[in-house]
Amino acid sequence: MLGNFSYHNPTKLYFGKDALEYLGDELQHYGKTVQLIYGGGSIKKNGIYQEIMEILLACGKEVVEDGGVMPNPTSERVELGAKRARENKVDLLLAVGGGSVCDYAKAVAVSAYCEEDFWEKYYIRFEDPTCKILPVGCVLTMAGTGSEMNGGSVITNRKQKLKIGHVFGSDVMPKFSILNPEFTYTLPERQMVSGIYDIFNHICEQYFSGEDDNVTDYLCEGLMKSVISASYRAKKNPRDYEARSNIMWAATWALNTLLDKGKTTDWEVHMLGQAVGAYTDATHGMTLAAVSLPYYRYILRYGLQKFKRFAIEVWNVKEKGSDEEIAERGLSAMENWMKDLGLTLNISDLGATPDMIEGIADATRIQKGGYHVLTRPEIVEILKASL
Amino acid sequence: MLGNFSYHNPTKLYFGKDALEYLGDELQHYGKTVQLIYGGGSIKKNGIYQEIMEILLACGKEVVEDGGVMPNPTSERVELGAKRARENKVDLLLAVGGGSVCDYAKAVAVSAYCEEDFWEKYYIRFEDPTCKILPVGCVLTMAGTGSEMNGGSVITNRKQKLKIGHVFGSDVMPKFSILNPEFTYTLPERQMVSGIYDIFNHICEQYFSGEDDNVTDYLCEGLMKSVISASYRAKKNPRDYEARSNIMWAATWALNTLLDKGKTTDWEVHMLGQAVGAYTDATHGMTLAAVSLPYYRYILRYGLQKFKRFAIEVWNVKEKGSDEEIAERGLSAMENWMKDLGLTLNISDLGATPDMIEGIADATRIQKGGYHVLTRPEIVEILKASL
Repeated sequence: MLGNFSYHNPTKLYFGKDALEYLGDELQHYGKTVQLIYGGGSIKKNGIYQEIMEILLACGKEVVEDGGVMPNPTSERVELGAKRARENKVDLLLAVGGGSVCDYAKAVAVSAYCEEDFWEKYYIRFEDPTCKILPVGCVLTMAGTGSEMNGGSVITNRKQKLKIGHVFGSDVMPKFSILNPEFTYTLPERQMVSGIYDIFNHICEQYFSGEDDNVTDYLCEGLMKSVISASYRAKKNPRDYEARSNIMWAATWALNTLLDKGKTTDWEVHMLGQAVGAYTDATHGMTLAAVSLPYYRYILRYGLQKFKRFAIEVWNVKEKGSDEEIAERGLSAMENWMKDLGLTLNISDLGATPDMIEGIADATRIQKGGYHVLTRPEIVEILKASL
Repeated sequence: MLGNFSYHNPTKLYFGKDALEYLGDELQHYGKTVQLIYGGGSIKKNGIYQEIMEILLACGKEVVEDGGVMPNPTSERVELGAKRARENKVDLLLAVGGGSVCDYAKAVAVSAYCEEDFWEKYYIRFEDPTCKILPVGCVLTMAGTGSEMNGGSVITNRKQKLKIGHVFGSDVMPKFSILNPEFTYTLPERQMVSGIYDIFNHICEQYFSGEDDNVTDYLCEGLMKSVISASYRAKKNPRDYEARSNIMWAATWALNTLLDKGKTTDWEVHMLGQAVGAYTDATHGMTLAAVSLPYYRYILRYGLQKFKRFAIEVWNVKEKGSDEEIAERGLSAMENWMKDLGLTLNISDLGATPDMIEGIADATRIQKGGYHVLTRPEIVEILKASL
């Protein structure tokens, strides 16, 4: 049954090969100083940096450089960025990159004028911002996290060995995002498939809850089938525009607050994956891939009818045999797809070792809202099965 | 292939049994004078009017009454409403009802301060508003048109015998909409099923264009399956909350600018249906139902692969026989569903007579963007087949 909810997603999107042409229009709505946020510098190699810099200068903006944001942005780095934004009286945070860069920009947006310890306030106590929030714009160069149209921000605290996401409200969502699928062409294959699994898992996290006839479950199934179809084409030819554009658009809708409306969710694969990420610094999507099957095979018994529906509707499994057999054949089909993509299916290959299991289990947040609330021994069991 | 597009839908939604509790919060963002727009008075019988009036008074609002809006709101009525809004310096237009009432409120919103002939400007020349636009809020009592989260406004000009829709931009979309599925319980069955077919056809209009592997086609299929499933349950028991809530939520997403992103569309069933509506004043959804099958059977040859996909994915038709046979079996399955719902499947039963055909054909706008651009003789042929 659809529960009570509110929905508000005001992010404006420009999508397509000509999307960057609209950046100038959007910049007019903001003041003179723009903090340009990006990652390791790939945007300098592929020319996107130069293109954006030309637009910024043509619009008369002053640019505060904030490059070199790491794949799993740290709380220390957020502190630096927030200081930079405050000291330069920045009017707009322009994030150019993938989810890490967008997530970091949102963290800076709520921290620049925060008078408390931002890590404690947002990522430990999960409070809403009470200070001035800086506006964020995104130019996306990687599809996966959906950060371009949501309030999510995942930050890693290295000292505390914690990687935690806070989902902020619509006032922290990007004011605009520019999505040109061609910008994702030069991404290494490993990052592409990692992003694809991130998208797929975002849908799963919201799908595997409840067993009634909910409109969002049908939307989830449609998005999953679209992602699977496009993933094979993109793997074969990374410059298949149709495939890359469908992946990019599916990524946005997989995590822009629509799919979980009226449902409860526990995001337990992310809780497990993020804990693995905090210990190994592995790519987000790969950590999710590495723990997914052991987790789903464990909770299958608690959400049997939905796993059966998943097998039939998403993987075209024939309705023969027991419910358990049908459900398991769905997960096997999913496993085959994951192997075809070349995803890492165990945490050992990501650098996790048996002696880390207890620590990773400690770092795994246990959440309610799914089919089963894990106990600590169950987390250890799933992590061991993921080695 | 996904074409270039922009997406921006800032309407805030409150959904569920307690949704009306949030009206007070929203009212605080607007000035003192509220124009309360509603239809024939059913909201006075079921108590919704009284509930809303209490909230308005508790918030210290002055209420300008604007009741009695007809099912197919006319341009004359819009003129009256616009004058009322202007003369009373109204701060917010609050529409309580179904699509007609919301559509009317949007027309008033862009016409109150319009210095030109609003009908000519918006509904004939399809220009954007250049005057001050009044904010609109909605309390929905019928699911179907999606007007609660889009910029669409269909108005009838009786003198010109024209029923025309203008899709305004995000500045005309409702600022907020309140969706309580229980408010739709008391709707007569004929109006409920008419709304259900309206929803289904909105999806079809956007689905039957293009034949590539587009993410929005998967979303369309998901929404269609959800509507079909919920429709049988709602027909059996109109107070099935799960069914009514899924229908209401599907209606919003069927027409809130998502499904046509990156695609061309021609909305030709609506063009035909609206022309029938201008001649018969029949319920919108019924006019669509009455022309749909003759139209789809006619254009099937131009979009064969998509009609085949529709048959397989939406209606579970077996992949046996020629493409034409599979596609036709899909439309037959759709016809059976329409009969099960009790929809009117010909325009004669809506009051159309053979001597009206030429006039209805004259009133039918021919649009590009679908599988086939109709000629006038083809329109006459389809209308005759619909008698």
